Amino acid sequence: MQSFEELVKEFSTYFNVRHFPSYPATLYDPCEYFLGLGGKRIRPVMCLMGNELFDTICPEAYHVATAIELFHNFTLIHDDIMDKAPLRRGLQTVHTKYNESTALLGGDVMVIQAYEYLNKVQSARIHKILSVFNKTARQVCEGQQLDMDFEKLQTVVIDEYIEMISLKTSVLMAASLQMGAILGGAGDANAKHLYEFGLNLGVAFQIQDDYLDAFGDPKKFGKQVGGDIVANKKTFLMIHALTAATATDKEELESLLYINSPDKIEKVLSIYKRCGVDEWARKLKEKYILQAFQHLEDIAVVSIRKKPLEHLGSFLVQRDY
Amino acid sequence: MQSFEELVKEFSTYFNVRHFPSYPATLYDPCEYFLGLGGKRIRPVMCLMGNELFDTICPEAYHVATAIELFHNFTLIHDDIMDKAPLRRGLQTVHTKYNESTALLGGDVMVIQAYEYLNKVQSARIHKILSVFNKTARQVCEGQQLDMDFEKLQTVVIDEYIEMISLKTSVLMAASLQMGAILGGAGDANAKHLYEFGLNLGVAFQIQDDYLDAFGDPKKFGKQVGGDIVANKKTFLMIHALTAATATDKEELESLLYINSPDKIEKVLSIYKRCGVDEWARKLKEKYILQAFQHLEDIAVVSIRKKPLEHLGSFLVQRDY
Repeated sequence: MQSFEELVKEFSTYFNVRHFPSYPATLYDPCEYFLGLGGKRIRPVMCLMGNELFDTICPEAYHVATAIELFHNFTLIHDDIMDKAPLRRGLQTVHTKYNESTALLGGDVMVIQAYEYLNKVQSARIHKILSVFNKTARQVCEGQQLDMDFEKLQTVVIDEYIEMISLKTSVLMAASLQMGAILGGAGDANAKHLYEFGLNLGVAFQIQDDYLDAFGDPKKFGKQVGGDIVANKKTFLMIHALTAATATDKEELESLLYINSPDKIEKVLSIYKRCGVDEWARKLKEKYILQAFQHLEDIAVVSIRKKPLEHLGSFLVQRDY
Repeated sequence: MQSFEELVKEFSTYFNVRHFPSYPATLYDPCEYFLGLGGKRIRPVMCLMGNELFDTICPEAYHVATAIELFHNFTLIHDDIMDKAPLRRGLQTVHTKYNESTALLGGDVMVIQAYEYLNKVQSARIHKILSVFNKTARQVCEGQQLDMDFEKLQTVVIDEYIEMISLKTSVLMAASLQMGAILGGAGDANAKHLYEFGLNLGVAFQIQDDYLDAFGDPKKFGKQVGGDIVANKKTFLMIHALTAATATDKEELESLLYINSPDKIEKVLSIYKRCGVDEWARKLKEKYILQAFQHLEDIAVVSIRKKPLEHLGSFLVQRDY
């Protein structure tokens, strides 16, 4: 059994090769550039961990993990175009460094390459893997579309927001674990529990992300607090605050969404605190963590094998067990 | 044995169903809208014909044909974004009717759906099909990239142009026939000959397209003659003319590329004729047609089974045998 950190190191070495031909360089160099920006490689490692929960990691799991990481990068390249994001991991996005057409086409060729890695699954399991992969890929697109739709709405119901976040973020984590489990020979019930573990963990992870942006310690968090507030992003906190605030606070909050005064962050945070958004977010996150760990517990495998996943869960939601 | 026309009718009825869920409508309605614009469905029918050359059409061929048509539409939606094309088949393109983000994401979800249809190939042939499909999909992206690269170049060598056209247009026709052949149980050599038939036919088809734009009878051609000239498009004719013209004509041709005078079409056509581009194009097209039909002849199948493909070839390049 290997830890998350060990597998990240192992996968990174494995993944850190050229995935595309050299010609035409105008198409493939941008793809390699983007992959070279790095990343935490959480999702592919989740696939390996899902595999090792049930059996020794098989070579096919590495192919599927690679496909997952390529798919994830394809969504990032295209999302960056849609979000008009100039930077990713502190460096230029593909459409900024090159141009939009290249980013569009580079993303396209990256998702096709992902399927080429899936085609390396030679066993009869390819159908199950493709089925999970395709469904998940569709859902991730749906999540991105809902996210864009929500940007245009005045109010979003929290349940709809959770559904969007699940689609955009959690399903790929959940499916990565599940595909690893399938390759490890897990039965449907166990694979489903592992999927639900990832799904709930993904939601908790996003709640925490939103929470830290507002209430995190800038030194530990690694970025400026209040970025989401400045960008008027709909977050768990903002959506709840618009429901839970008093009439006066709600009015102030709504008017703050239209201005960018120097004390905007401070004012929004005050309202957040007054209507107890911080406490609410902590509880909501806790609820999803508990659900996640319940599903992990329900998997019919000796508990020692679950240790790395427990550790990963705690790491992702920064909670010490 | 069914004719091309019969199969187009049959496939169109089969394909004319909803391919996407209803929610989120903001994502899936644009996809359905675009598929509803119709099209000649040449590629999927080539898959069915490739299949019937060797055996009775199997249900899997319909799934692969559907995947091919979805893939083709995915490339059209994304190409329209890159080319900033307002219209397709006389109606609004997806990015014009909706917006660029929706067109980008709609294309993404369409190529994913294509792979879902490929996953319906339950036999062990799925690996071979995926391998051909992925390679072809990559090549189509490469062709689009080269096309964009060439737009920025002053001069393009004819061989490079033919390579670009092969990638952008011909490989998908060739691969459609080949995948049908694979599902029909064809051996590698026969499948290869059928692929080459499609590849050469595709190039001949494009030469004819370029030729008709300049020299076609507007009544029969169905669109205004000289559209490529007005758009300064690099075509077979333009590339050859820039090589074959006299120094004076070349100079005039190059200067014409920078203006849009009312007599531009007329002047370019005069130069085309003076340097014999029309005759050259007819001969080049003939060369590719002959190569195509030689490959068809080399397939080890009784000639009666080849009739529909012969007919298709003649139809595509408008040549009466």
